[in-house]
Amino acid sequence: MTEQRTVAIWRDGAAVAVPAAEPVVTAFDQGLGRGDGVFESVAVVEGRTPHLDAHLARLDRSASLLGLVSPGGSAWRRLVAAVVVDWQPGLEGVCRLFLTRGLGDGTPPTALALLAPVPADTLRQRTEGISVVSLGLGVPADFRAGAPWLLGGAKTLSYAVNMAAQRHAHDLGADDVVLTSLEGRVLEGPTSTVVWATGGALHTPPADTGILAGTTQARLFARAEADGWPTAVTAGTVDDLHAADAVWLLSGVRGAATVHTLDGVRRGDAGLSRRVRELLAR
Amino acid sequence: MTEQRTVAIWRDGAAVAVPAAEPVVTAFDQGLGRGDGVFESVAVVEGRTPHLDAHLARLDRSASLLGLVSPGGSAWRRLVAAVVVDWQPGLEGVCRLFLTRGLGDGTPPTALALLAPVPADTLRQRTEGISVVSLGLGVPADFRAGAPWLLGGAKTLSYAVNMAAQRHAHDLGADDVVLTSLEGRVLEGPTSTVVWATGGALHTPPADTGILAGTTQARLFARAEADGWPTAVTAGTVDDLHAADAVWLLSGVRGAATVHTLDGVRRGDAGLSRRVRELLAR
Repeated sequence: MTEQRTVAIWRDGAAVAVPAAEPVVTAFDQGLGRGDGVFESVAVVEGRTPHLDAHLARLDRSASLLGLVSPGGSAWRRLVAAVVVDWQPGLEGVCRLFLTRGLGDGTPPTALALLAPVPADTLRQRTEGISVVSLGLGVPADFRAGAPWLLGGAKTLSYAVNMAAQRHAHDLGADDVVLTSLEGRVLEGPTSTVVWATGGALHTPPADTGILAGTTQARLFARAEADGWPTAVTAGTVDDLHAADAVWLLSGVRGAATVHTLDGVRRGDAGLSRRVRELLAR
Repeated sequence: MTEQRTVAIWRDGAAVAVPAAEPVVTAFDQGLGRGDGVFESVAVVEGRTPHLDAHLARLDRSASLLGLVSPGGSAWRRLVAAVVVDWQPGLEGVCRLFLTRGLGDGTPPTALALLAPVPADTLRQRTEGISVVSLGLGVPADFRAGAPWLLGGAKTLSYAVNMAAQRHAHDLGADDVVLTSLEGRVLEGPTSTVVWATGGALHTPPADTGILAGTTQARLFARAEADGWPTAVTAGTVDDLHAADAVWLLSGVRGAATVHTLDGVRRGDAGLSRRVRELLAR
């Protein structure tokens, strides 16, 4: 795989390409030792990053929530260009952008881009759908809005719990997770946004629960509205998902993964996944 | 500072010293991109690490909770020896041990040790005491015991919220934080264990709340018991801390930091801090 991966790091005002197997971060970088940084995962399709703007906007919001100074859109675009330039156009990729607090204490942040092929599992889940389990996050839905130190809405490098939730799902024979609030309200997936169809409309949970604002969900909702498919921000429960016509986990790289099993119960999609994918592909 | 920092990484069964300013981790390491790893902070005093055993035991527990395979006590001791060997004996240090998931997918974990001088702020807080604010974590005290995906009890590299809580405290003019459960029960500091004295005994919150088991707290309690000072695991509130004879935040490097201000209210220590420090210094 190594030769299919590329890396670039921001140094002295320039994007510097680095071999993928070469270390790029020192032991004292706060991104490593404290997960103190933010990131984005950007789809690379046919050698292009069509949705980069939305990711850069969210990266800026995340950075702001952590008090990090982003090197700016121009720097990120040059980093992305540096990793994409020699990429095989036919190979679908995921480009990650990392921004860390660097060595801390007012030193420059660390900014880098890395590009790898989309994992086979992700491609399979996109076409075959996914089995998900609901797992509690333990926090009331309205708590994080008043507790900025919990970093609700920020996509941080501190994803150990997100990864542990997915491992827990795998141990249960499932592919992925829907996290729920203490009251049982649907929040988000560990790396995705929850969207469901019911009553002739598309629904997604409110952002003030502390979930991440989904770039793919936002694109889908804008295009659905333009196409005459109503959308709504809705507080829903896992029971609402069971009762829905269709449920998807949306993310930039995997796209709309149809939930075919929820907490062990098989479910359909009422033929709506095709329309969702068509809207996202426009 | 750079010349006062040392790093060693585990490669091919050996501890390899690396210049502190040299990158040691690749962009694809899951410790960097996902905070997917565990760590310990070990005090280095007079060129020695007297409490290393307790930290290695906890590192193993953390690794187990994340499904990581530790390279073993012998590897960690060789890494520690490699960073401590040329350290100035008169300079107090903090040696951090990192274990990450490496590149994932069954590849070897990344294991490294890094050593730096104890920050001046930490030394000041140890002698002058600290002002702390209580901040909610939003999770009920009994929730994490039944939700292993939340990684309660594991010291992970995903410390962005811990760091954000401390920044929030600094913005409020305080030094540090006591995190509380949804019901207002005292949990822990972002990098420390809460201990308080009341009714002639020392108290600390129960581990089944998902807090980290404190190595310094354990040492203090064992020595206090041997010295005739009773200890107890107690569910307490912030009001209990206000009413206590003394409150400390305990950690391996800072030791027992006396809380002289809690949520803006000045408080004393009934002269007990000296006894706590004497017990820890034995």
